[in-house]
Amino acid sequence: MTTLEPTNLTTLKRATDRGHFDRATIDSIIDQAVICHVGYVVDGSPVVMPTCHWRDGDYLYWHGSRISRTMLESHAQPVCVTITHLDGLVLARSGLHHSANYRSVLVYGTPVIEDNADAKLASLKLFIDRMFPGRWDTLREASRKEMDATTVLKLPLTEASAKVRSGPPHDLEEDTGHPVWAGVIPFKTITGNPEPCSFNPPDMPVPANVTDYQPGVAKR
Amino acid sequence: MTTLEPTNLTTLKRATDRGHFDRATIDSIIDQAVICHVGYVVDGSPVVMPTCHWRDGDYLYWHGSRISRTMLESHAQPVCVTITHLDGLVLARSGLHHSANYRSVLVYGTPVIEDNADAKLASLKLFIDRMFPGRWDTLREASRKEMDATTVLKLPLTEASAKVRSGPPHDLEEDTGHPVWAGVIPFKTITGNPEPCSFNPPDMPVPANVTDYQPGVAKR
Repeated sequence: MTTLEPTNLTTLKRATDRGHFDRATIDSIIDQAVICHVGYVVDGSPVVMPTCHWRDGDYLYWHGSRISRTMLESHAQPVCVTITHLDGLVLARSGLHHSANYRSVLVYGTPVIEDNADAKLASLKLFIDRMFPGRWDTLREASRKEMDATTVLKLPLTEASAKVRSGPPHDLEEDTGHPVWAGVIPFKTITGNPEPCSFNPPDMPVPANVTDYQPGVAKR
Repeated sequence: MTTLEPTNLTTLKRATDRGHFDRATIDSIIDQAVICHVGYVVDGSPVVMPTCHWRDGDYLYWHGSRISRTMLESHAQPVCVTITHLDGLVLARSGLHHSANYRSVLVYGTPVIEDNADAKLASLKLFIDRMFPGRWDTLREASRKEMDATTVLKLPLTEASAKVRSGPPHDLEEDTGHPVWAGVIPFKTITGNPEPCSFNPPDMPVPANVTDYQPGVAKR
Protein backbone atom coordinates (compact mmCIF):
# COMPACT_ATOMS: atom_id res chain seq x y z
CA MET A 1 0.00 0.00 0.00
CA THR A 2 1.28 3.46 -0.89
CA THR A 3 0.27 6.54 0.99
CA LEU A 4 -0.22 9.58 -1.21
CA GLU A 5 1.68 12.11 0.85
CA PRO A 6 0.23 15.56 1.41
CA THR A 7 2.38 18.64 1.09
CA ASN A 8 4.44 19.35 4.16
CA LEU A 9 2.23 22.10 5.50
CA THR A 10 5.01 23.69 7.53
CA THR A 11 6.72 24.71 4.30
CA LEU A 12 3.70 26.50 2.85
CA LYS A 13 4.20 30.17 2.20
CA ARG A 14 0.90 31.77 2.93
CA ALA A 15 0.10 35.28 1.79
CA THR A 16 -3.07 35.79 3.83
CA ASP A 17 -5.02 33.68 6.30
CA ARG A 18 -6.00 30.47 4.49
CA GLY A 19 -5.88 32.05 1.04
CA HIS A 20 -3.82 32.99 -2.02
CA PHE A 21 -0.63 30.96 -1.88
CA ASP A 22 2.49 31.12 -4.01
CA ARG A 23 2.76 29.18 -7.28
CA ALA A 24 4.96 26.42 -5.81
CA THR A 25 2.18 25.62 -3.33
CA ILE A 26 -0.51 25.84 -5.99
CA ASP A 27 1.50 23.54 -8.27
CA SER A 28 2.05 20.93 -5.54
CA ILE A 29 -1.66 20.84 -4.68
CA ILE A 30 -2.47 20.34 -8.38
CA ASP A 31 0.23 17.73 -8.97
CA GLN A 32 -0.61 15.60 -5.93
CA ALA A 33 -4.25 15.31 -7.02
CA VAL A 34 -5.57 12.86 -9.58
CA ILE A 35 -8.97 14.43 -10.20
CA CYS A 36 -10.35 17.93 -10.42
CA HIS A 37 -13.87 19.32 -10.80
CA VAL A 38 -14.47 21.42 -13.91
CA GLY A 39 -17.30 23.93 -13.63
CA TYR A 40 -18.80 25.56 -16.72
CA VAL A 41 -22.03 27.26 -17.68
CA VAL A 42 -24.66 25.89 -20.05
CA ASP A 43 -27.67 28.10 -20.82
CA GLY A 44 -26.99 30.11 -17.67
CA SER A 45 -26.82 27.08 -15.37
CA PRO A 46 -23.68 25.57 -13.86
CA VAL A 47 -22.38 22.07 -14.60
CA VAL A 48 -19.61 20.52 -12.47
CA MET A 49 -17.88 17.44 -13.88
CA PRO A 50 -15.09 15.38 -12.29
CA THR A 51 -12.17 14.49 -14.52
CA CYS A 52 -8.47 13.63 -14.34
CA HIS A 53 -6.05 16.49 -14.94
CA TRP A 54 -2.38 17.14 -15.45
CA ARG A 55 -0.11 20.17 -15.40
CA ASP A 56 2.62 21.21 -17.79
CA GLY A 57 4.42 24.32 -16.56
CA ASP A 58 1.97 27.20 -16.48
CA TYR A 59 -1.01 25.26 -17.87
CA LEU A 60 -3.58 22.86 -16.46
CA TYR A 61 -4.87 20.20 -18.89
CA TRP A 62 -7.71 17.73 -19.12
CA HIS A 63 -9.08 15.63 -21.95
CA GLY A 64 -12.17 13.84 -23.11
CA SER A 65 -14.06 12.47 -26.04
CA ARG A 66 -14.32 15.06 -28.80
CA ILE A 67 -18.08 14.57 -28.93
CA SER A 68 -18.74 14.59 -25.18
CA ARG A 69 -21.00 17.29 -23.77
CA THR A 70 -18.25 18.47 -21.43
CA MET A 71 -15.73 18.97 -24.20
CA LEU A 72 -18.22 20.62 -26.54
CA GLU A 73 -19.59 22.95 -23.87
CA SER A 74 -16.54 23.87 -21.79
CA HIS A 75 -14.02 25.13 -24.32
CA ALA A 76 -13.71 28.79 -25.27
CA GLN A 77 -16.01 29.55 -22.31
CA PRO A 78 -15.15 30.68 -18.79
CA VAL A 79 -14.54 27.76 -16.45
CA CYS A 80 -13.61 27.27 -12.82
CA VAL A 81 -11.48 24.21 -12.10
CA THR A 82 -11.29 23.19 -8.45
CA ILE A 83 -8.89 20.69 -6.93
CA THR A 84 -9.41 19.62 -3.32
CA HIS A 85 -7.54 17.40 -0.89
CA LEU A 86 -9.49 16.60 2.28
CA ASP A 87 -6.78 16.21 4.93
CA GLY A 88 -8.92 15.77 8.01
CA LEU A 89 -12.00 16.53 10.07
CA VAL A 90 -11.66 19.03 12.89
CA LEU A 91 -13.77 18.27 15.96
CA ALA A 92 -14.37 21.26 18.21
CA ARG A 93 -16.30 21.68 21.46
CA SER A 94 -19.26 23.40 19.84
CA GLY A 95 -21.01 22.31 16.66
CA LEU A 96 -20.36 25.43 14.63
CA HIS A 97 -16.62 25.44 15.35
CA HIS A 98 -16.20 22.07 13.68
CA SER A 99 -14.20 22.35 10.47
CA ALA A 100 -12.19 20.45 7.89
CA ASN A 101 -8.49 20.48 7.12
CA TYR A 102 -7.99 20.74 3.39
CA ARG A 103 -5.86 22.07 0.57
CA SER A 104 -7.68 23.43 -2.46
CA VAL A 105 -6.88 25.31 -5.64
CA LEU A 106 -9.30 27.26 -7.82
CA VAL A 107 -8.32 28.12 -11.37
CA TYR A 108 -10.42 30.57 -13.35
CA GLY A 109 -10.03 31.13 -17.07
CA THR A 110 -11.07 30.17 -20.56
CA PRO A 111 -9.65 26.87 -21.81
CA VAL A 112 -8.61 26.42 -25.40
CA ILE A 113 -8.31 23.24 -27.44
CA GLU A 114 -4.78 21.99 -27.99
CA ASP A 115 -5.12 21.64 -31.75
CA ASN A 116 -1.49 21.19 -32.73
CA ALA A 117 -1.23 17.42 -33.32
CA ASP A 118 2.35 17.11 -32.04
CA ALA A 119 1.68 19.21 -28.94
CA LYS A 120 -1.48 17.18 -28.25
CA LEU A 121 0.39 13.88 -28.48
CA ALA A 122 3.24 15.19 -26.30
CA SER A 123 0.69 16.40 -23.78
CA LEU A 124 -1.10 13.05 -23.53
CA LYS A 125 2.29 11.36 -23.07
CA LEU A 126 2.95 13.78 -20.22
CA PHE A 127 -0.44 12.86 -18.72
CA ILE A 128 0.27 9.11 -18.68
CA ASP A 129 3.85 9.62 -17.51
CA ARG A 130 2.87 11.97 -14.71
CA MET A 131 0.61 9.22 -13.42
CA PHE A 132 2.98 6.31 -14.13
CA PRO A 133 6.55 7.44 -14.89
CA GLY A 134 7.88 5.97 -18.13
CA ARG A 135 4.66 4.13 -19.00
CA TRP A 136 3.82 5.87 -22.30
CA ASP A 137 6.72 4.30 -24.19
CA THR A 138 5.65 0.80 -23.07
CA LEU A 139 2.11 1.15 -24.49
CA ARG A 140 0.62 0.35 -27.86
CA GLU A 141 1.07 3.50 -29.94
CA ALA A 142 -1.93 5.85 -30.09
CA SER A 143 -3.79 5.49 -33.36
CA ARG A 144 -4.82 8.34 -35.62
CA LYS A 145 -8.47 7.39 -34.99
CA GLU A 146 -7.99 7.56 -31.18
CA MET A 147 -6.20 10.90 -31.43
CA ASP A 148 -8.94 12.35 -33.64
CA ALA A 149 -11.61 11.21 -31.18
CA THR A 150 -9.86 12.94 -28.25
CA THR A 151 -9.94 16.60 -27.33
CA VAL A 152 -7.29 18.10 -25.03
CA LEU A 153 -8.12 21.35 -23.27
CA LYS A 154 -5.53 23.68 -21.71
CA LEU A 155 -6.09 26.43 -19.19
CA PRO A 156 -3.45 28.95 -18.10
CA LEU A 157 -2.67 29.11 -14.38
CA THR A 158 -2.64 32.90 -14.39
CA GLU A 159 -5.81 33.12 -12.28
CA ALA A 160 -5.09 30.39 -9.73
CA SER A 161 -5.33 30.64 -5.98
CA ALA A 162 -5.08 28.19 -3.10
CA LYS A 163 -6.83 27.84 0.24
CA VAL A 164 -5.42 25.71 3.02
CA ARG A 165 -6.60 24.90 6.54
CA SER A 166 -4.49 22.78 8.85
CA GLY A 167 -4.07 22.20 12.55
CA PRO A 168 -6.30 21.81 15.61
CA PRO A 169 -9.77 23.24 16.31
CA HIS A 170 -10.10 26.92 17.15
CA ASP A 171 -12.58 26.91 20.00
CA LEU A 172 -13.62 29.95 21.97
CA GLU A 173 -11.36 30.31 25.00
CA GLU A 174 -14.28 29.78 27.40
CA ASP A 175 -15.13 26.48 25.66
CA THR A 176 -11.74 24.77 26.00
CA GLY A 177 -12.74 23.19 29.33
CA HIS A 178 -15.96 21.70 27.94
CA PRO A 179 -15.70 17.93 28.63
CA VAL A 180 -15.77 16.50 25.12
CA TRP A 181 -12.96 15.05 23.03
CA ALA A 182 -11.67 17.63 20.54
CA GLY A 183 -9.00 17.24 17.91
CA VAL A 184 -8.41 16.13 14.35
CA ILE A 185 -9.20 12.92 12.48
CA PRO A 186 -6.60 12.88 9.69
CA PHE A 187 -7.62 11.55 6.27
CA LYS A 188 -5.30 9.86 3.84
CA THR A 189 -5.73 8.44 0.38
CA ILE A 190 -3.89 5.19 -0.09
CA THR A 191 -3.59 2.70 -2.90
CA GLY A 192 -4.46 -0.95 -2.36
CA ASN A 193 -2.96 -4.05 -3.93
CA PRO A 194 -2.87 -3.77 -7.74
CA GLU A 195 -5.54 -5.88 -9.46
CA PRO A 196 -4.05 -7.41 -12.63
CA CYS A 197 -6.16 -7.68 -15.76
CA SER A 198 -7.05 -11.30 -16.54
CA PHE A 199 -5.32 -11.02 -19.93
CA ASN A 200 -1.89 -10.39 -18.34
CA PRO A 201 0.44 -13.40 -18.57
CA PRO A 202 0.36 -15.09 -15.11
CA ASP A 203 4.09 -14.48 -14.53
CA MET A 204 4.04 -10.78 -15.54
CA PRO A 205 5.70 -8.72 -12.79
CA VAL A 206 3.93 -5.65 -11.42
CA PRO A 207 6.01 -2.60 -12.39
CA ALA A 208 7.39 -0.24 -9.74
CA ASN A 209 5.31 2.70 -11.04
CA VAL A 210 2.22 0.64 -10.10
CA THR A 211 3.34 -0.79 -6.75
CA ASP A 212 4.80 2.57 -5.64
CA TYR A 213 2.14 4.70 -7.25
CA GLN A 214 2.46 8.46 -6.75
CA PRO A 215 0.94 11.14 -8.96
CA GLY A 216 3.34 13.93 -9.87
CA VAL A 217 4.79 15.75 -12.83
CA ALA A 218 6.44 13.95 -15.71
CA LYS A 219 9.82 15.12 -16.89
CA ARG A 220 9.86 16.03 -20.55
CA MET B 1 -7.08 3.21 11.01
CA THR B 2 -10.56 2.99 9.55
CA THR B 3 -11.20 2.31 5.91
CA LEU B 4 -14.10 4.27 4.51
CA GLU B 5 -15.80 1.46 2.67
CA PRO B 6 -17.07 2.03 -0.84
CA THR B 7 -20.48 0.79 -1.86
CA ASN B 8 -20.51 -2.86 -2.79
CA LEU B 9 -20.58 -2.34 -6.51
CA THR B 10 -22.13 -5.72 -7.21
CA THR B 11 -25.33 -4.56 -5.56
CA LEU B 12 -25.73 -1.43 -7.67
CA LYS B 13 -28.84 -1.30 -9.77
CA ARG B 14 -27.81 0.39 -12.96
CA ALA B 15 -30.35 1.77 -15.38
CA THR B 16 -27.99 2.43 -18.29
CA ASP B 17 -24.28 1.98 -18.89
CA ARG B 18 -22.46 4.05 -16.25
CA GLY B 19 -25.33 6.48 -15.77
CA HIS B 20 -28.59 7.32 -14.01
CA PHE B 21 -28.85 5.05 -11.01
CA ASP B 22 -31.67 4.48 -8.55
CA ARG B 23 -32.10 6.69 -5.48
CA ALA B 24 -30.65 4.13 -3.07
CA THR B 25 -27.39 4.19 -5.02
CA ILE B 26 -27.43 7.98 -5.27
CA ASP B 27 -28.06 8.27 -1.53
CA SER B 28 -25.22 5.90 -0.63
CA ILE B 29 -22.74 7.81 -2.83
CA ILE B 30 -23.82 11.06 -1.14
CA ASP B 31 -23.77 9.64 2.40
CA GLN B 32 -20.35 8.00 2.11
CA ALA B 33 -18.75 11.27 1.02
CA VAL B 34 -17.65 14.04 3.34
CA ILE B 35 -17.22 16.82 0.79
CA CYS B 36 -18.97 17.92 -2.35
CA HIS B 37 -18.23 20.60 -4.95
CA VAL B 38 -20.91 23.29 -5.32
CA GLY B 39 -20.99 25.03 -8.70
CA TYR B 40 -22.83 28.32 -9.17
CA VAL B 41 -22.75 31.21 -11.59
CA VAL B 42 -21.59 34.75 -10.80
CA ASP B 43 -21.87 37.34 -13.55
CA GLY B 44 -22.04 34.60 -16.16
CA SER B 45 -18.92 32.80 -14.93
CA PRO B 46 -18.81 29.55 -12.95
CA VAL B 47 -17.48 29.21 -9.42
CA VAL B 48 -16.84 25.75 -7.89
CA MET B 49 -16.36 25.59 -4.13
CA PRO B 50 -15.65 22.52 -1.98
CA THR B 51 -17.71 22.17 1.17
CA CYS B 52 -19.00 19.51 3.56
CA HIS B 53 -22.54 18.30 2.95
CA TRP B 54 -25.20 16.16 4.55
CA ARG B 55 -28.46 14.57 3.46
CA ASP B 56 -31.81 14.45 5.17
CA GLY B 57 -34.29 12.33 3.23
CA ASP B 58 -34.91 13.95 -0.12
CA TYR B 59 -32.68 17.00 0.45
CA LEU B 60 -28.98 17.72 0.26
CA TYR B 61 -27.69 20.36 2.69
CA TRP B 62 -24.59 22.48 3.18
CA HIS B 63 -23.84 25.46 5.36
CA GLY B 64 -21.54 28.42 5.69
CA SER B 65 -21.06 31.85 7.11
CA ARG B 66 -24.07 34.04 6.40
CA ILE B 67 -21.79 36.72 4.92
CA SER B 68 -19.58 34.42 2.82
CA ARG B 69 -19.52 34.93 -0.94
CA THR B 70 -20.63 31.36 -1.52
CA MET B 71 -23.69 31.65 0.68
CA LEU B 72 -24.66 35.05 -0.69
CA GLU B 73 -24.18 34.04 -4.31
CA SER B 74 -25.42 30.46 -4.45
CA HIS B 75 -28.89 30.59 -2.93
CA ALA B 76 -32.00 31.08 -4.99
CA GLN B 77 -29.82 30.49 -8.09
CA PRO B 78 -29.30 27.34 -10.13
CA VAL B 79 -26.46 25.21 -8.79
CA CYS B 80 -24.82 21.90 -9.67
CA VAL B 81 -23.50 19.94 -6.70
CA THR B 82 -21.10 17.13 -7.59
CA ILE B 83 -19.91 14.38 -5.26
CA THR B 84 -17.10 12.11 -6.44
CA HIS B 85 -15.36 9.05 -5.01
CA LEU B 86 -12.20 8.07 -6.89
CA ASP B 87 -12.05 4.28 -6.49
CA GLY B 88 -9.07 3.48 -8.67
CA LEU B 89 -6.93 4.09 -11.73
CA VAL B 90 -7.41 1.80 -14.69
CA LEU B 91 -4.24 0.99 -16.63
CA ALA B 92 -4.84 -0.22 -20.16
CA ARG B 93 -2.48 -1.29 -22.94
CA SER B 94 -2.89 1.93 -24.93
CA GLY B 95 -2.80 5.45 -23.51
CA LEU B 96 -6.29 6.48 -24.52
CA HIS B 97 -7.92 3.39 -23.00
CA HIS B 98 -6.68 4.33 -19.54
CA SER B 99 -9.53 5.31 -17.25
CA ALA B 100 -10.59 5.81 -13.66
CA ASN B 101 -12.97 3.85 -11.48
CA TYR B 102 -15.28 6.23 -9.68
CA ARG B 103 -18.72 6.83 -8.27
CA SER B 104 -20.21 10.30 -8.74
CA VAL B 105 -23.49 12.08 -8.25
CA LEU B 106 -24.62 15.32 -9.85
CA VAL B 107 -27.50 17.24 -8.33
CA TYR B 108 -29.05 20.13 -10.24
CA GLY B 109 -31.49 22.58 -8.71
CA THR B 110 -32.02 25.83 -6.89
CA PRO B 111 -31.15 25.77 -3.19
CA VAL B 112 -33.18 27.68 -0.66
CA ILE B 113 -32.20 28.97 2.75
CA GLU B 114 -33.50 26.95 5.68
CA ASP B 115 -34.95 29.91 7.54
CA ASN B 116 -37.07 28.17 10.14
CA ALA B 117 -34.94 28.41 13.30
CA ASP B 118 -36.00 25.02 14.70
CA ALA B 119 -35.50 23.22 11.38
CA LYS B 120 -32.11 24.87 10.97
CA LEU B 121 -30.94 23.76 14.41
CA ALA B 122 -32.28 20.22 13.85
CA SER B 123 -30.49 20.11 10.51
CA LEU B 124 -27.11 21.17 11.96
CA LYS B 125 -27.53 18.51 14.66
CA LEU B 126 -28.12 15.98 11.90
CA PHE B 127 -24.93 17.20 10.17
CA ILE B 128 -22.74 16.68 13.25
CA ASP B 129 -24.42 13.39 14.12
CA ARG B 130 -24.10 12.00 10.59
CA MET B 131 -20.36 12.63 10.87
CA PHE B 132 -20.00 11.52 14.52
CA PRO B 133 -23.06 9.62 15.82
CA GLY B 134 -24.38 11.10 19.07
CA ARG B 135 -21.83 13.92 19.22
CA TRP B 136 -24.22 16.90 19.08
CA ASP B 137 -25.63 16.30 22.56
CA THR B 138 -22.11 16.21 24.05
CA LEU B 139 -21.18 19.67 22.70
CA ARG B 140 -21.50 23.15 24.12
CA GLU B 141 -24.94 24.35 23.00
CA ALA B 142 -25.03 26.51 19.87
CA SER B 143 -25.43 30.18 20.75
CA ARG B 144 -27.96 32.52 19.21
CA LYS B 145 -25.06 34.54 17.78
CA GLU B 146 -23.52 31.46 16.11
CA MET B 147 -26.86 30.42 14.69
CA ASP B 148 -27.52 33.90 13.30
CA ALA B 149 -24.08 33.92 11.64
CA THR B 150 -24.73 30.61 9.89
CA THR B 151 -26.72 29.98 6.74
CA VAL B 152 -28.02 26.51 5.90
CA LEU B 153 -28.92 25.79 2.28
CA LYS B 154 -31.12 22.89 1.14
CA LEU B 155 -31.44 21.44 -2.33
CA PRO B 156 -34.02 18.83 -3.36
CA LEU B 157 -32.70 15.59 -4.83
CA THR B 158 -35.32 15.58 -7.57
CA GLU B 159 -32.71 16.19 -10.30
CA ALA B 160 -29.97 13.85 -9.13
CA SER B 161 -28.12 11.26 -11.19
CA ALA B 162 -25.16 8.99 -10.63
CA LYS B 163 -22.34 7.74 -12.79
CA VAL B 164 -20.23 4.74 -11.85
CA ARG B 165 -17.29 2.98 -13.49
CA SER B 166 -15.81 -0.15 -11.97
CA GLY B 167 -13.79 -3.14 -13.07
CA PRO B 168 -10.80 -3.85 -15.32
CA PRO B 169 -9.58 -1.98 -18.42
CA HIS B 170 -11.52 -2.38 -21.68
CA ASP B 171 -8.76 -2.76 -24.23
CA LEU B 172 -9.32 -3.48 -27.89
CA GLU B 173 -9.26 -7.24 -28.44
CA GLU B 174 -6.15 -7.02 -30.62
CA ASP B 175 -4.30 -5.16 -27.83
CA THR B 176 -4.77 -7.71 -25.04
CA GLY B 177 -1.49 -9.48 -25.93
CA HIS B 178 0.56 -6.24 -25.81
CA PRO B 179 3.34 -6.94 -23.27
CA VAL B 180 2.62 -4.33 -20.62
CA TRP B 181 1.07 -4.72 -17.18
CA ALA B 182 -2.63 -3.78 -17.25
CA GLY B 183 -5.10 -3.66 -14.41
CA VAL B 184 -6.44 -1.47 -11.65
CA ILE B 185 -4.75 0.42 -8.83
CA PRO B 186 -7.50 0.68 -6.19
CA PHE B 187 -7.73 3.89 -4.15
CA LYS B 188 -9.03 4.09 -0.61
CA THR B 189 -9.56 6.90 1.82
CA ILE B 190 -8.55 5.97 5.34
CA THR B 191 -8.42 7.82 8.62
CA GLY B 192 -5.19 8.01 10.61
CA ASN B 193 -4.66 8.12 14.36
CA PRO B 194 -6.81 10.84 15.96
CA GLU B 195 -4.79 13.93 16.99
CA PRO B 196 -6.13 15.22 20.32
CA CYS B 197 -6.39 18.97 20.94
CA SER B 198 -3.82 20.13 23.50
CA PHE B 199 -6.64 21.43 25.74
CA ASN B 200 -8.09 17.92 26.24
CA PRO B 201 -7.39 16.47 29.70
CA PRO B 202 -4.48 14.01 29.29
CA ASP B 203 -6.58 11.04 30.41
CA MET B 204 -9.58 11.81 28.16
CA PRO B 205 -10.51 8.68 26.20
CA VAL B 206 -10.99 8.89 22.44
CA PRO B 207 -14.67 8.19 21.72
CA ALA B 208 -15.68 5.31 19.45
CA ASN B 209 -17.23 7.67 16.88
CA VAL B 210 -13.71 9.10 16.40
CA THR B 211 -11.66 5.88 16.43
CA ASP B 212 -14.17 4.08 14.19
CA TYR B 213 -15.01 7.08 12.07
CA GLN B 214 -17.52 6.50 9.25
CA PRO B 215 -19.65 9.15 7.57
CA GLY B 216 -23.28 8.16 7.17
CA VAL B 217 -26.78 9.35 7.92
CA ALA B 218 -27.88 10.31 11.40
CA LYS B 219 -31.08 8.87 12.78
CA ARG B 220 -33.54 11.51 13.86
